Amino acid sequence: MASRLGVNQYGKAETHLVRVYRDGDVHSLRDLTVSVALAGDLEAVHLTGDNANVLPTDTQKNTVYAFAKEAPVGAPEAFALRLARHFVTGPIRRARVEVYETMWARVNAHPHAFTQASGERRFAAAVSEAGGDRVLSGIADLVLLKSTGSEFSGFERDRYTTLAETRDRVLATAVTARWRHAAANGDWDESFAGARRALIEAFAFTHSLSLQQTLYAMGRAVLEARGEVAEVRLSLPNRHHFVVDLAPFGLENANEVFHADDRPYGLIEGVVEREGAPDPGPAWAPYPLL
Amino acid sequence: MASRLGVNQYGKAETHLVRVYRDGDVHSLRDLTVSVALAGDLEAVHLTGDNANVLPTDTQKNTVYAFAKEAPVGAPEAFALRLARHFVTGPIRRARVEVYETMWARVNAHPHAFTQASGERRFAAAVSEAGGDRVLSGIADLVLLKSTGSEFSGFERDRYTTLAETRDRVLATAVTARWRHAAANGDWDESFAGARRALIEAFAFTHSLSLQQTLYAMGRAVLEARGEVAEVRLSLPNRHHFVVDLAPFGLENANEVFHADDRPYGLIEGVVEREGAPDPGPAWAPYPLL
Amino acid sequence: MASRLGVNQYGKAETHLVRVYRDGDVHSLRDLTVSVALAGDLEAVHLTGDNANVLPTDTQKNTVYAFAKEAPVGAPEAFALRLARHFVTGPIRRARVEVYETMWARVNAHPHAFTQASGERRFAAAVSEAGGDRVLSGIADLVLLKSTGSEFSGFERDRYTTLAETRDRVLATAVTARWRHAAANGDWDESFAGARRALIEAFAFTHSLSLQQTLYAMGRAVLEARGEVAEVRLSLPNRHHFVVDLAPFGLENANEVFHADDRPYGLIEGVVEREGAPDPGPAWAPYPLL
Amino acid sequence: MASRLGVNQYGKAETHLVRVYRDGDVHSLRDLTVSVALAGDLEAVHLTGDNANVLPTDTQKNTVYAFAKEAPVGAPEAFALRLARHFVTGPIRRARVEVYETMWARVNAHPHAFTQASGERRFAAAVSEAGGDRVLSGIADLVLLKSTGSEFSGFERDRYTTLAETRDRVLATAVTARWRHAAANGDWDESFAGARRALIEAFAFTHSLSLQQTLYAMGRAVLEARGEVAEVRLSLPNRHHFVVDLAPFGLENANEVFHADDRPYGLIEGVVEREGAPDPGPAWAPYPLL
Repeated sequence: MASRLGVNQYGKAETHLVRVYRDGDVHSLRDLTVSVALAGDLEAVHLTGDNANVLPTDTQKNTVYAFAKEAPVGAPEAFALRLARHFVTGPIRRARVEVYETMWARVNAHPHAFTQASGERRFAAAVSEAGGDRVLSGIADLVLLKSTGSEFSGFERDRYTTLAETRDRVLATAVTARWRHAAANGDWDESFAGARRALIEAFAFTHSLSLQQTLYAMGRAVLEARGEVAEVRLSLPNRHHFVVDLAPFGLENANEVFHADDRPYGLIEGVVEREGAPDPGPAWAPYPLL
Repeated sequence: MASRLGVNQYGKAETHLVRVYRDGDVHSLRDLTVSVALAGDLEAVHLTGDNANVLPTDTQKNTVYAFAKEAPVGAPEAFALRLARHFVTGPIRRARVEVYETMWARVNAHPHAFTQASGERRFAAAVSEAGGDRVLSGIADLVLLKSTGSEFSGFERDRYTTLAETRDRVLATAVTARWRHAAANGDWDESFAGARRALIEAFAFTHSLSLQQTLYAMGRAVLEARGEVAEVRLSLPNRHHFVVDLAPFGLENANEVFHADDRPYGLIEGVVEREGAPDPGPAWAPYPLL
Repeated sequence: MASRLGVNQYGKAETHLVRVYRDGDVHSLRDLTVSVALAGDLEAVHLTGDNANVLPTDTQKNTVYAFAKEAPVGAPEAFALRLARHFVTGPIRRARVEVYETMWARVNAHPHAFTQASGERRFAAAVSEAGGDRVLSGIADLVLLKSTGSEFSGFERDRYTTLAETRDRVLATAVTARWRHAAANGDWDESFAGARRALIEAFAFTHSLSLQQTLYAMGRAVLEARGEVAEVRLSLPNRHHFVVDLAPFGLENANEVFHADDRPYGLIEGVVEREGAPDPGPAWAPYPLL
Repeated sequence: MASRLGVNQYGKAETHLVRVYRDGDVHSLRDLTVSVALAGDLEAVHLTGDNANVLPTDTQKNTVYAFAKEAPVGAPEAFALRLARHFVTGPIRRARVEVYETMWARVNAHPHAFTQASGERRFAAAVSEAGGDRVLSGIADLVLLKSTGSEFSGFERDRYTTLAETRDRVLATAVTARWRHAAANGDWDESFAGARRALIEAFAFTHSLSLQQTLYAMGRAVLEARGEVAEVRLSLPNRHHFVVDLAPFGLENANEVFHADDRPYGLIEGVVEREGAPDPGPAWAPYPLL
């Protein structure tokens, strides 16, 4: 039997870096969890255990920390890009660096005390290879809810359909979104702030006939607000809020009392692309692979 | 061999209620996860399986939903108290109701769109029995960090001690705090807001010689700010931020680059009491039991 | 206002130790996660930040590792006891050491390859003070299910009760159990194996009229099987398996197709004591405190 | 600006089905968590909210339960395939069904009492479209450890490298593996058992010079053992076990006492393919999308 090595990558995952900047007495923070995945001429290590082309994942971790000192960290996109470019050398022909940023807010006007601002995490990734660099931005765990302005009706029915149509329901989701930049430079913080705002406002101000419609509106809103974005990918769980039947207790329930269920949940996923956008190349290669 | 039944309780845990209030077009929300534990004359069900004294946990769940419609939910403390009092009847002689509230913030001035405001959860509990009611408030997952203003030195040493003293370290924690009210009434929302503010400000403005000292300062600050609070209990994990050794790369690291570690972690716990406070009774009985 | 320090404890939590024993080519493992909590003369550190009585939690971590080399680790109860006794010295008047053991099974007859045997974790705790030592054993995440042999009927009803009686249901739970030993010595591995077997067999062979009845039977079975055990504490979530209504699809469902729900869940908790058992002292003091 | 809809899919995720089979008094179980993702002519729902082509995710959930009654569930691969084929009709042109199976073991010879056998989960997926069907099998959370027989040396070094070479280390991982079948039929249970055995034995019996080498050996072993498998994908976190420095305490540590760390971790991922295997088609399309 003949077997062969296919797609492969390796690296250090989830190095948790906190970088403190001290501008006199006034401090600021960046809190980044960084994952690196390298690909290239790695056949020998798989087939024979020859590590000559393998830069240890321990070294990758060291590099994350050293880079945080050698130059300003900046936006997570910039830091990911700087790291990714560094790793592409010798046998390594492609590097992917993914970053999740935890956001901290200053306590009042305190110079060095902070509180974790929200459960949201900002995401950034850079993929670097000889042919150029790709940059993604994104967000995870952005939890949104509308208490009205959402319908679901006119859907297909088969013999297993029991769902009633509704003209008024709660719509809730935890947004995972990633978007691809047309170029590997920009004002990342401003771009992120604008894209995040567009996502939230599109969710809030779209009268929703389906979560798919809301998803498309959210993606399009980012493209409209941010000319530098080529493509938006969204994964939106439908966090079902079921109207509780209070009739056995002689009570009406006009969309006032809900059971927020955990599982199962709808999962609505899609891509909104700008026409004529540049090719993504390896920007969306899966990480982790499984 | 003679065995006997000791402490016992039962109930429905983690009923996730979302209550929407519709004041014309402008909506508001309460998002509560409610757990009930009942105790009383429950020997027969344990020894012989006679359920005559057992109000089903399914009924307890129904009650949470029905109560959310029959009267305003109000603060989580008030809702817990209303439920706890209801369940104490017939063979049930004590009811404990615990509530975690997830906080939502309005999107801009939108009438019915919300975003989950933070990872913090507000806590409330009520314990009701013939002898009266007890109320606890609290907070979980309040993550705080100081980038300076924290020392640790002068500690005990033994033959296994290798830790160096430090005059400047990062201090970070995820606060779990609960406090007991002297009476079962009050302006719960104002009380909570004041206690939360006291905790955060004490953490921020205490120059810390140890996390124990900070803990005590946080508890005392709540007692000073809120005369209605009899006792504060705090559980503070010390989320270690280790200074990364950058010397092998020819770099200094003057408390700028940190590795935020997960485990192990210090765990500092303590109670701060007001002298002369009323007896807690069963307020702190463990839930869950293990 | 006068405030004072109440109950307090501190220590290093979740030190994850893996100890490899090499008996020639044949290896064996103990995989223990160890948490330490110390109490004693700790007023100064809370009130003034004087650390003179504070053995660093870093030292406690070091001690866990050093002890694993200085003498055989043995059963988790024995290791907890050895550590707890060590820490009670000078200002420290009580030490609590809790251990979770992850179980590994040998791959076939391989001398040094192992697979994690199950999701269950074995638990042990020792509490040491001048007055003597207490030892707990236990288990967590032991998931059990009966597909019949469980009823629930004859229960109390009120105006919020809608639950139907049932003579045949699925009963499923994830057992958390801890039991207290009358003395601080014994054959811990044999004792644990016997207690675990008693729990499982009592669950399996008790025709259940309620989960409370099953709980009591499980606790009593441990006391009957193991004379050295003074008391058993159980926390049993009722993992509801709901019969799916297939009537809309023209199908019967005679307890064959179930929806396994996550939340809410019943939570049944209780203590089964041996009459005349010695006083528990601080064995059950809460850890963590909140 | 012109935007357009790209790749999209939707469905019900994590329907948790437990199917009880009653062969007289002797019962058996299948415990499956099923996720469905449908793709096809879904432009209208995204662009205008027209749901005419949208079979509700609620209906998909109902279908999972009804199918579990209408015919034997069988192996998870078979169940996934039966469901996937069902959903491809009308506007739906591709269906992906993923299943995780939780394994239960009978308590002794008990006819209807079970214990959850391990933390491992069996995985299966089917992708159905007009052009045919693809089937994947797999495993998650299979935790393996070797206490020796693993080296790491001869690796690339750069200015950030501090790692020492080692001729003897602990190698531990939590295997996530998925493999693609050449055809959409077979004896799934026998195939799974053989592939799982091959993975474990290759891990155990490969003297490891790197985790990449072990990964390739594991994938190749599956291909050698199971002629019906076309391709194996593996994601192997390197769960670092660090030798604790006990020298400060006057103790040697010859690979006996380890700190099992959580993060960061190495992540080694790769594909092992059979030469001449059929094209995967959409078998590996990402789910979830992000």
